[in-house]
Amino acid sequence: MSAITNASNPAIKAIRRLRQRRERERSGTFFVEGIRLVAEAARTGASVEQCVVAPELLASAFARGVVRELRERSVPVLEVSREVFGSLSGRENPQGIGAVVRQDLDGLAELPVSPTLGFVALDGVADPGNLGTILRTCDGAGFDGVILLGETTDPYDLTALRASMGAVFTRRIARAGWPELLEWRAARGYQLVGAASGARTSYRGAAYVPPLVLLVGSERAGLSAEQKAVCDLTVSIPMAGAADSLNLAVAAGILMYEIATSDER
Amino acid sequence: MSAITNASNPAIKAIRRLRQRRERERSGTFFVEGIRLVAEAARTGASVEQCVVAPELLASAFARGVVRELRERSVPVLEVSREVFGSLSGRENPQGIGAVVRQDLDGLAELPVSPTLGFVALDGVADPGNLGTILRTCDGAGFDGVILLGETTDPYDLTALRASMGAVFTRRIARAGWPELLEWRAARGYQLVGAASGARTSYRGAAYVPPLVLLVGSERAGLSAEQKAVCDLTVSIPMAGAADSLNLAVAAGILMYEIATSDER
Repeated sequence: MSAITNASNPAIKAIRRLRQRRERERSGTFFVEGIRLVAEAARTGASVEQCVVAPELLASAFARGVVRELRERSVPVLEVSREVFGSLSGRENPQGIGAVVRQDLDGLAELPVSPTLGFVALDGVADPGNLGTILRTCDGAGFDGVILLGETTDPYDLTALRASMGAVFTRRIARAGWPELLEWRAARGYQLVGAASGARTSYRGAAYVPPLVLLVGSERAGLSAEQKAVCDLTVSIPMAGAADSLNLAVAAGILMYEIATSDER
Repeated sequence: MSAITNASNPAIKAIRRLRQRRERERSGTFFVEGIRLVAEAARTGASVEQCVVAPELLASAFARGVVRELRERSVPVLEVSREVFGSLSGRENPQGIGAVVRQDLDGLAELPVSPTLGFVALDGVADPGNLGTILRTCDGAGFDGVILLGETTDPYDLTALRASMGAVFTRRIARAGWPELLEWRAARGYQLVGAASGARTSYRGAAYVPPLVLLVGSERAGLSAEQKAVCDLTVSIPMAGAADSLNLAVAAGILMYEIATSDER
């Protein structure tokens, strides 16, 4: 099979369209690029529908091994020229390997009943970098995954995928509505812990009882009064200086690690 | 004075050139935009050399108050059209207010002798978003500022400024070489704490003795063997999952808050 050299080839155009969230949602797929992310997709058994390689760019033996492994699993491999790969890539120096992967979004009922630490529920988080970084921290701290509420951004956005450093393939991701979340966590008996800047209880050494759901609001507005009212526990991170908040992914990381390493467990 | 309507006006071109690091370093100034950042520059008494406003875009009374305050402090105010402001702005929906501000980089000798918690020293940190976010967390946790070692990126980069959420004006920022840092911290008797993924001591409840210098390496390589060897204490953050590290700003945030809220103090 000769390499595709035309960036207007229909198969290439179809992949390029996956930059748009609407098209990702319609197709139920997304495009990842880079050796690390594609290798992680292969390692975790993600549903890879297609692999795209630019042999001219594929320098490492490790990357060629990943492609071989995918071929053995009967994944179609599309060979393209350096220029065509460039037309798909969001990077300045593309590594010449990418994959179209099936999205793996759960409903709440499909999430594990006895999770390790529990889940981080994000309501209206707008920045894909924050979402991806929180997925990465879930992996590090031992949280089982994220629950996306309201208008929370797309975990399969390019920036989110990159920031997740592969955690998009190791963590569970669910989408749910707020009333549905409340019902589910009550039925399963999970503690609901809200991150709320005004809370009187400091996050440090608070009475966390995992498995729990750590509820985090949007970058701009935080949690609503109603959300704070239904939490079993709301905690705040003390702010010493002039700023009134931390970066959302940093704040979530501090809380996740406090819960993970807390003496209460 | 009538508003500048030509984006090729020399004063406008000079501001636009501040997008380049080289030009920022040559002039010793930088450009911030947005109500929040300009207001923070005014509030903290930063050395504002020029204010730029697009009256058509300046909706809020608060923003007009900031401009009035700067005028009263004899800061020249350049009025520009909406289009000209757009040519300066890095945003999709510019707020119509910006300022050229003098850089405030210290040498080590100028840093406060009795800091609150101490400083975060960053060696070779490449991502301006990470640098800005760490400045923001310094403000929140009560660290006095950052020391930029090696090839660490520019704190006056647009992305760093935005991520700092104004902390660039409230925290101290110094540049130094590695041997100089070692001499300085020894002379002042500050504890040197290294963030090192392989360290046997967990970050949690380690023997922190502020004021201290928290040493953080680059996103890719972390600290060198020599750097780890000279630290009084190296600590690691446990990783439960598949990933081998956290986002750098998240990791720094977890360590900073552990130090700030530790029982050792």
